[in-house]
Amino acid sequence: MSVVGIIAEFNPFHSGHEFLLNQARLIAGNDPIVVVMSGNYVQRGEMAIMSKYQRAKVALQSGADLVFETPFSTAVEPADLFSLGNIEQLAKLGVTDLVFGVENANLNFAYLGSKIAEIPQNHMDFKDYSQTYSTQYNQMVAREVGHEVNQPNAILGLAYAVANHNLGSPLKLHPVNRIGAGHDDLLQRNGVVQSASAIRNLLLHGEDTSNLKYWVPKAEAIELSKQEIYPNWNLLYPFLKYRIESSSIDDLRQIYQMSEGLEYKMKQEIHLSRDFTEFLRRIKSKRYTYSRLRRLSLYTLLNVTQDDMIASFNEESLMLLGFSKTGRQYLKKNRKDFQTEIISKVDKRSAKSGSLALQVRTDRLFEQIMGVDQNFGQRPIEV
Amino acid sequence: MSVVGIIAEFNPFHSGHEFLLNQARLIAGNDPIVVVMSGNYVQRGEMAIMSKYQRAKVALQSGADLVFETPFSTAVEPADLFSLGNIEQLAKLGVTDLVFGVENANLNFAYLGSKIAEIPQNHMDFKDYSQTYSTQYNQMVAREVGHEVNQPNAILGLAYAVANHNLGSPLKLHPVNRIGAGHDDLLQRNGVVQSASAIRNLLLHGEDTSNLKYWVPKAEAIELSKQEIYPNWNLLYPFLKYRIESSSIDDLRQIYQMSEGLEYKMKQEIHLSRDFTEFLRRIKSKRYTYSRLRRLSLYTLLNVTQDDMIASFNEESLMLLGFSKTGRQYLKKNRKDFQTEIISKVDKRSAKSGSLALQVRTDRLFEQIMGVDQNFGQRPIEV
Repeated sequence: MSVVGIIAEFNPFHSGHEFLLNQARLIAGNDPIVVVMSGNYVQRGEMAIMSKYQRAKVALQSGADLVFETPFSTAVEPADLFSLGNIEQLAKLGVTDLVFGVENANLNFAYLGSKIAEIPQNHMDFKDYSQTYSTQYNQMVAREVGHEVNQPNAILGLAYAVANHNLGSPLKLHPVNRIGAGHDDLLQRNGVVQSASAIRNLLLHGEDTSNLKYWVPKAEAIELSKQEIYPNWNLLYPFLKYRIESSSIDDLRQIYQMSEGLEYKMKQEIHLSRDFTEFLRRIKSKRYTYSRLRRLSLYTLLNVTQDDMIASFNEESLMLLGFSKTGRQYLKKNRKDFQTEIISKVDKRSAKSGSLALQVRTDRLFEQIMGVDQNFGQRPIEV
Repeated sequence: MSVVGIIAEFNPFHSGHEFLLNQARLIAGNDPIVVVMSGNYVQRGEMAIMSKYQRAKVALQSGADLVFETPFSTAVEPADLFSLGNIEQLAKLGVTDLVFGVENANLNFAYLGSKIAEIPQNHMDFKDYSQTYSTQYNQMVAREVGHEVNQPNAILGLAYAVANHNLGSPLKLHPVNRIGAGHDDLLQRNGVVQSASAIRNLLLHGEDTSNLKYWVPKAEAIELSKQEIYPNWNLLYPFLKYRIESSSIDDLRQIYQMSEGLEYKMKQEIHLSRDFTEFLRRIKSKRYTYSRLRRLSLYTLLNVTQDDMIASFNEESLMLLGFSKTGRQYLKKNRKDFQTEIISKVDKRSAKSGSLALQVRTDRLFEQIMGVDQNFGQRPIEV
């Protein structure tokens, strides 16, 4: 039995993801494809462009059998923690194989992952404050494996491989070439594939959406075209500004990842910044990447403290967003053996603590912006 | 020498206030008229309709000699604390006489104030939770003085009188009949006087402002007509909703005056409310007046904690908003004898603690809404 797992954001779901699901189906056969998908907030530190239910639905319609929501405390984290949390959850769900898209599937990810995982920890204590952590990490990887790994999906794939190794290799790794990469880029040139970020940009800039149907499943294209608001940082910036200006330095210092005086810097610069881009530029230093600072801004916006994250880490449950018939059967048969708690219905008790409490609270702003409840009163989608 | 004090909000300044200043001039003669005016937040728990500098300027142009900003921790409080703080500050500024407008100046405020002030404290420990504190207070006053005092300015005047008595009667009280009250209401019928709330409503409902010039000084009418944004709770509601939904119950419990489980009530009801009016209605109970709940909402919006208020109470300074020539001379001669600190220029040091720290922080939202800095970089207005 090959229960195939996919780690995803689907922000939004597009034909490249369809291709990945088809590749996963080749491995899974009649066994289920299990997706752990980030909720309404994504790794690069922003709100998703479409609600988690809408994104889960299209994934199910495109071949996924189970879609679970990755807890915020795993979803909005750098690649290493993002990978560790997601792979651990997949393993707890009985997943045996991980399928992921990369620019070059010929790399031996399992081997590279184990090699990097065994680099002594003290080699990772980067002390050069004039470079970001991720730059120094990538340089270290290049030294150790003999060549640079600098394409975004390869870097993420490597992080999966390292995490998998560190967890005792519960998953068999199946890197697959992404559409639009290498020999497939004919498809990209012909406009059959667009990256998620290209699609987001098109939506955010209010451009003509008539080509959407070539890039995303038709039902999704219709939903996206009808959507009145596309969440983005420009929309959220007044709330961030209000939050930072009305918070005391002590309040800000409680925020997860607020370190090295960034609370003073943020308070000073937000007052002078007209928009989010300017704010990010003003707080940028050599030490931190934009992704890190965008995530920090998101934690601040959502009032996510160090304590909140620890409470969530320590009690991560998985919210079931939807299932197919195959998915339901798998769930029915195996649920009792899962090493993780599955939430099918949010109620006051389950929302009281742990990752679900954080999810409910952070989703409130998404609900305020979009006008649709995301947890209470929602049930998993059946496809 | 009669240094005349006025306690004001001027939200906005109108012909009734001009009349009051003229009455004050009759008493002051060549001596100064000193105004303590609330800043950008007012007693009924909302943002002022016009900035503190604009309101101070028109007061100075209409005869005031010195305008100081009442600290937030006095300005946004129920009548008793509002009165106590303001009268104490006036006394510290060397003021000898208090002029205030009431519906009926024939009441002997000094006598009534002393009588009420001497009611034993345990008579004020109202235990009837089915009525608001202020209803029970007014009933008690009626019992003690033999008749009801229920007109809004009379109630406030009485609070001044009680506070003055409690402070050892530093000020001589001069109640004056408000224009539009009693025999003067011909003026109101003829449209020469409008109340501040009527003027605010006209502005907020986007009505024709061509009549403004009859009700407020001409220069102010022009400024008000040009103003693009009139602060109000509808504008602020998205921020309040965001604040309450993103705060933990523990965060909310730190807010000044958050008591008896109101933090749970607010969190529950804000999610269900479409606007501020609905929210207030939903959290209303017999125990609390709308004013109290509006102030609580304002404290929440501005993240004003119990600790913030205590820190401000314990270190109240007065920001000088503007002065006339007479005012400047008075200040020059007497400043060293004042029992209170005067701030003419906000700098990082002075803004670090006490009432100025709270003022700077709470004004940030006003600045965000209006786009004009309110403290740093501002100097007192000279008229």
